[in-house]
Amino acid sequence: MLKSNNSTNGQQLEKRQRVAIVGAGFGGMQAAQSLARSGVEVMLIDRNNYQTFVPLLYQVATAQIEPEKIAYPIRTIVRSSPNIRFLMAEVEHIDFANKVIKTDNTSITYDYLVLATGSQTQFLGIPGASEYAFSMRNLGEAIALRERIFSCFEKAAQHSDPISREHLLTFAIVGGGGTGVEVAGALSESLKVLAKDYPTLDLRQGRIILLQSSDRLLPDLPQKLGNYTYKRLLQMGVKVHLNAKVSRVIRGGVYLHDGESIPAATVVWTAGMEAVYPTISEKLFITAKSKLIVNPTLQLPGRSNVYAIGDLAYVEQRGKPLTGVAPEALQQGVAVAKNIKRHLQGKKPQRFKYFNKGRLAIIGSYSGVGKIGPFEFGGFLGWFMWLGVHLVYLPGYRSRLLVLLSWLHTYLVGDRTARSIVFSKTTLQKTPERLYR
Amino acid sequence: MLKSNNSTNGQQLEKRQRVAIVGAGFGGMQAAQSLARSGVEVMLIDRNNYQTFVPLLYQVATAQIEPEKIAYPIRTIVRSSPNIRFLMAEVEHIDFANKVIKTDNTSITYDYLVLATGSQTQFLGIPGASEYAFSMRNLGEAIALRERIFSCFEKAAQHSDPISREHLLTFAIVGGGGTGVEVAGALSESLKVLAKDYPTLDLRQGRIILLQSSDRLLPDLPQKLGNYTYKRLLQMGVKVHLNAKVSRVIRGGVYLHDGESIPAATVVWTAGMEAVYPTISEKLFITAKSKLIVNPTLQLPGRSNVYAIGDLAYVEQRGKPLTGVAPEALQQGVAVAKNIKRHLQGKKPQRFKYFNKGRLAIIGSYSGVGKIGPFEFGGFLGWFMWLGVHLVYLPGYRSRLLVLLSWLHTYLVGDRTARSIVFSKTTLQKTPERLYR
Repeated sequence: MLKSNNSTNGQQLEKRQRVAIVGAGFGGMQAAQSLARSGVEVMLIDRNNYQTFVPLLYQVATAQIEPEKIAYPIRTIVRSSPNIRFLMAEVEHIDFANKVIKTDNTSITYDYLVLATGSQTQFLGIPGASEYAFSMRNLGEAIALRERIFSCFEKAAQHSDPISREHLLTFAIVGGGGTGVEVAGALSESLKVLAKDYPTLDLRQGRIILLQSSDRLLPDLPQKLGNYTYKRLLQMGVKVHLNAKVSRVIRGGVYLHDGESIPAATVVWTAGMEAVYPTISEKLFITAKSKLIVNPTLQLPGRSNVYAIGDLAYVEQRGKPLTGVAPEALQQGVAVAKNIKRHLQGKKPQRFKYFNKGRLAIIGSYSGVGKIGPFEFGGFLGWFMWLGVHLVYLPGYRSRLLVLLSWLHTYLVGDRTARSIVFSKTTLQKTPERLYR
Repeated sequence: MLKSNNSTNGQQLEKRQRVAIVGAGFGGMQAAQSLARSGVEVMLIDRNNYQTFVPLLYQVATAQIEPEKIAYPIRTIVRSSPNIRFLMAEVEHIDFANKVIKTDNTSITYDYLVLATGSQTQFLGIPGASEYAFSMRNLGEAIALRERIFSCFEKAAQHSDPISREHLLTFAIVGGGGTGVEVAGALSESLKVLAKDYPTLDLRQGRIILLQSSDRLLPDLPQKLGNYTYKRLLQMGVKVHLNAKVSRVIRGGVYLHDGESIPAATVVWTAGMEAVYPTISEKLFITAKSKLIVNPTLQLPGRSNVYAIGDLAYVEQRGKPLTGVAPEALQQGVAVAKNIKRHLQGKKPQRFKYFNKGRLAIIGSYSGVGKIGPFEFGGFLGWFMWLGVHLVYLPGYRSRLLVLLSWLHTYLVGDRTARSIVFSKTTLQKTPERLYR
């Protein structure tokens, strides 16, 4: 067991407090970095040795950028901060009373704990969704979806039967939020861009169907921008179904509540998420989407040394819940670090206040929407700002340069990168690969 | 079944001859490209939708470049040639008498056949080698090895026991040819370069052991260059064992013929290869390493419409067999295309002559060896020429630019890219992951 102080040498001259941070996503990593060069010892724990830049996962899934560009080595991020240690491990259990984290390898004691384990796909109890739909909440899933897309193209190229071809080239995307819109737009452009690689196949025959359960796209943005996005996607050839509630996913398609069936060889699920965390020694206060209820200071009720941030935490701002985007997690990471430092100085923690810099969503080439303060905009400006903001937040100068090069390639040359089908034969479980054999 | 002519519409005005090429490696792809815009219809078949630039696989395995950079989409390479069609399929059987290729999806008739399916790892009957050693003959294997290396680093960082640490940081490489030398050199540099990411671990304690069965490294190059390589690797900290014949591979180490045991958590196998091809309707003439004996024209004896090229074919030049490097396959691809065109013109095929432009091998940063004509050289010049030649032969301007950037990053900044452990948890079979749990 890794002890929280150096009591083995008998010296207690300097008992450094240990802050354990579970999860190295936007929130956890920011908390660690905000505690760099502070008096505390930080133990950052993640099941992966890399941080995933989640907002660009859809670009990996649609072959616009290579996976490595959005997977940044955690050790490289923290190596300049000697008080931050990293542990790659799966956290199995946390004992609040004894302040011990049990991982699959070791146990770690802590003085302060920051829970930042994020969220995972929630299939909302829809039968067949977890078996047959592709989700893309992590790098492995995004690569699986990418390989699925190119496998469908290759299979379609081998079929002379037009029905099978059309089926293989139909992609149904469930969920009309940011991710669903991004995947639909990118896929629709892929079909056009890749057409020249499939001379025997008219990829333009491919169909992208976006299924949104409510009456508008991008519900987190103003109605006007949702309407703009709807029109833009239609222009791009995406078939958008509003008020389309999925009741069942089957191998090769989905059923809607009204009984309509939509054949599609590939179903992409972007519709639901839920908070995810290790088992804890005591009962937690949980609300919608399994999120943890926290105090306005981001502390767990009754556990002043435990914080929860990011997708995991249910935080309200002016009576409305935060929506789980990266800037919220980043600001909470800063806030939690500040509060822990205040503890150590004997001060009371402060309430977290989210400063909303705005929201952006990308639809396709030269087309995005955004709201910054009172300003709402769509089209080129939205696209350009989206690119700029995501570039700025990407960790590492090298990633930034390379992602910029990939985008130039995608948007100017109009091609796709990273199209190899390497793993799907052996490792993808959900692919109904043999549907047409 | 895809018929070889358009007889369905009753017109026989132009019966185009079909050349089927099985395998889109260096040889097969070159043959296809040399037949572009000729009168024939080319059907290029490969199990993957990408061409692997095999000489750089070791750089993927050692995280010097990302996998996508050496996996080039076959459809992109051939899309400017309307007479070349690509089929992604696994060839299961070839019927020479009826000129039919049976794949897992369809059957294809041909008039001429080019076999270019290359080679695979051969474990030389050494017990345990196929179970416990990592080979790297394809992209999936190279990625598996890379993830294994970083998993070992992460595991070692979690151990306070020095014996376990040393074991986890010991890599034994079996085979002292080009690939073995390249992996040993790159790994040894990785340990130094990555040290700053593992502050609690002295990566310099890591051990790279290169086991060569004969009395010299790089047997395909002059003795002098083998000696230079030996000395250079020793300087870099690699432990080179000559005359070290592996008798058995176990979980966590190897045994030598003389009974010595070498503990190493990771064993990399670069020692053997054998030709690989689909089952054929009739008996073939086979020699060492399962290679097919071919006429000097590269035709199979008794089958004038079937050619075999690349690693698959046993070809002698001035009484000595060719060694299976890329330039040989490339030149054979050109030769086979020329011979097929001669057939069609009613001319006799010509003997293949290999023009040996030279041999190069890289040891590490600023260090390589080479022989071009009568000139033998080592050091910076060998390294520089190796980089240049491999850049020139890489397909696609974009890959070239990006590989160059990666190399600048590797050699100047001294860092490693692509270090994410994404797949190993679920997909790698050979990893004795639980050795230390």
